[in-house]
Amino acid sequence: MHLAEAVLSGNRLALARLLTQVENGTPEGVAALDFLFPFTGKAHLIGITGAPGTGKSSLVNQLARAFRHLKNGASERRVAVVAVDPSSPFTGGALLGDRVRMRDLAGDAGVFIRSMASRGALGGLARATASVVQVLDAAGYDVIMVETVGVGQSEVDIARLAYTTLVVEAPGLGDDIQASKAGILEIADILVVNKADQAGADNTERSLRAMLEMAYPSKGYRGHHGVRSGEEAAADMSQMPAWVPPVMRTVALDASGIEELAQAILQHGEYLRATGEWQRREYVRLKNELDDLLRAALMARWQSGVRDDDYRSVLEQLCARQISPYQAVARLLEFGIQAGGANDKL
Amino acid sequence: MHLAEAVLSGNRLALARLLTQVENGTPEGVAALDFLFPFTGKAHLIGITGAPGTGKSSLVNQLARAFRHLKNGASERRVAVVAVDPSSPFTGGALLGDRVRMRDLAGDAGVFIRSMASRGALGGLARATASVVQVLDAAGYDVIMVETVGVGQSEVDIARLAYTTLVVEAPGLGDDIQASKAGILEIADILVVNKADQAGADNTERSLRAMLEMAYPSKGYRGHHGVRSGEEAAADMSQMPAWVPPVMRTVALDASGIEELAQAILQHGEYLRATGEWQRREYVRLKNELDDLLRAALMARWQSGVRDDDYRSVLEQLCARQISPYQAVARLLEFGIQAGGANDKL
Repeated sequence: MHLAEAVLSGNRLALARLLTQVENGTPEGVAALDFLFPFTGKAHLIGITGAPGTGKSSLVNQLARAFRHLKNGASERRVAVVAVDPSSPFTGGALLGDRVRMRDLAGDAGVFIRSMASRGALGGLARATASVVQVLDAAGYDVIMVETVGVGQSEVDIARLAYTTLVVEAPGLGDDIQASKAGILEIADILVVNKADQAGADNTERSLRAMLEMAYPSKGYRGHHGVRSGEEAAADMSQMPAWVPPVMRTVALDASGIEELAQAILQHGEYLRATGEWQRREYVRLKNELDDLLRAALMARWQSGVRDDDYRSVLEQLCARQISPYQAVARLLEFGIQAGGANDKL
Repeated sequence: MHLAEAVLSGNRLALARLLTQVENGTPEGVAALDFLFPFTGKAHLIGITGAPGTGKSSLVNQLARAFRHLKNGASERRVAVVAVDPSSPFTGGALLGDRVRMRDLAGDAGVFIRSMASRGALGGLARATASVVQVLDAAGYDVIMVETVGVGQSEVDIARLAYTTLVVEAPGLGDDIQASKAGILEIADILVVNKADQAGADNTERSLRAMLEMAYPSKGYRGHHGVRSGEEAAADMSQMPAWVPPVMRTVALDASGIEELAQAILQHGEYLRATGEWQRREYVRLKNELDDLLRAALMARWQSGVRDDDYRSVLEQLCARQISPYQAVARLLEFGIQAGGANDKL
């Protein structure tokens, strides 16, 4: 518990070390998660996704700065960034991005940055990200941004970790709104047109609004609610039937639109709290994590009760097409039952 | 077994109906898979992936035509296309694409097209796609192309179904090679620069070659092997230590480069067979499918042995942060053991 206690007391080196343990799923990492879990649940988790080339990383850096400047009453916000990059043997993108960011936000003790690469299976990555976010939450970071590269289902899965999800678009990435084809727009709480100073930004914004109008036909799409003070917004929102995702323009390079975007994110957090949606999202998130861990644990328990030779012999019959995949599973489950006595002791 | 037998005898309507059963995971669908599985293993499964906007669908249509024209000795090839589109409430993309294709290739009884949308979880989609491909394989389609939209981990998972994987790029989709950032290049057997008549195609090709040179430094990247006859290629390849992915240029709209691409795909199939890599990929594919089905079956068996109230009470303790996710799993596993006697009868 040494590392976990050091994390609670604000030790950054201990935090970095513990995150490595947690990512690698070591027994010490799991024990630390058990110890830290009661301290979680305070952070505003924000997911940021979008196609490569939309400038997400710069946007996240700017948002980190903005959240540092926007005071929360008298106290400041501590900000963590988790950048989830599928690994590539070609670029080593995760590490490079990490170093660039580190330089950018260096020296601010209220900001912590962590990159994660998808070396294993997808399930493994989403699980590891959930654990990393929990440690950061317990460590007292008020805002945790999880940035993912890509526009596929894996990004949707990772976005499920968040209370507020941003989908980032940019002009000049082809004819299509990249996210719409991949079905990712439906998870957006806020849509961002980044690189809004470039040619085609108006078209990108128009396409997004047109799609939103199709999605919210009964209410009539009203666009951005406008930025209000916390109290005004909270009062307003208790009567608001549903959040309609605003489309916001930013230029990450010169920070224009960034403070407004940060305000809108905080406003969405207030909306979630005022309507009870915050708790609902937290419930769904924890249930997903529980089921995911349970599936992995059931597989591990089953494996420990079955001999490798038995598994291999079924797999060979499958490859020889003597049995079908479903028949193979039925045989494997029988092994598990025969070994039930041994299993019970695990 | 009525539908499955009709599928073996070449009935297209029965095939379409059975695919629906299989996608929905009905008992009749599972029984049909068991019946048909011994007839699988002949088809050349080809995965095609790439970012939205690269023109993959047109490319796949053209490839379907090319495979129809390229005779296999005296006999023709039957071709199936499975288009896997994550569903979107905004566009209904899967169905629309389907109709466009249908018009395009209509009237050729040697071509079968199926669209699938990702309505459920990712695991579910990969599993359903594997089953759909097995039915088409048993139905006698020699070439089965699985096209996925997006550049994320889900696409990598679906590409694992294939013997030959194409990654499609196009000029004008932003500054980056879209697939490289998402780590998808490492799964490519053949790289395609589509829309090669557009400005920037040379740059796209150069970037791909530069990345390949980083990936194959020891061998020296030699690029495309050139198109040879089947026998020449087979003789050559038995001495070839490793396949180096060629970069090929196509213009799907006027079919240029398409026949060369189809030849390269067939050549890759010959390379796989000559080197034993075909069998290795098949083994990995079937093992992945088996483990995936096993995980789902273990979860289903566990669930049937546990009372809803017990599960809910653990989830509530988790949401109240009285126990951690790992502690919650440990409790849930205990329920499974207590209910072990009942479980054994399942």
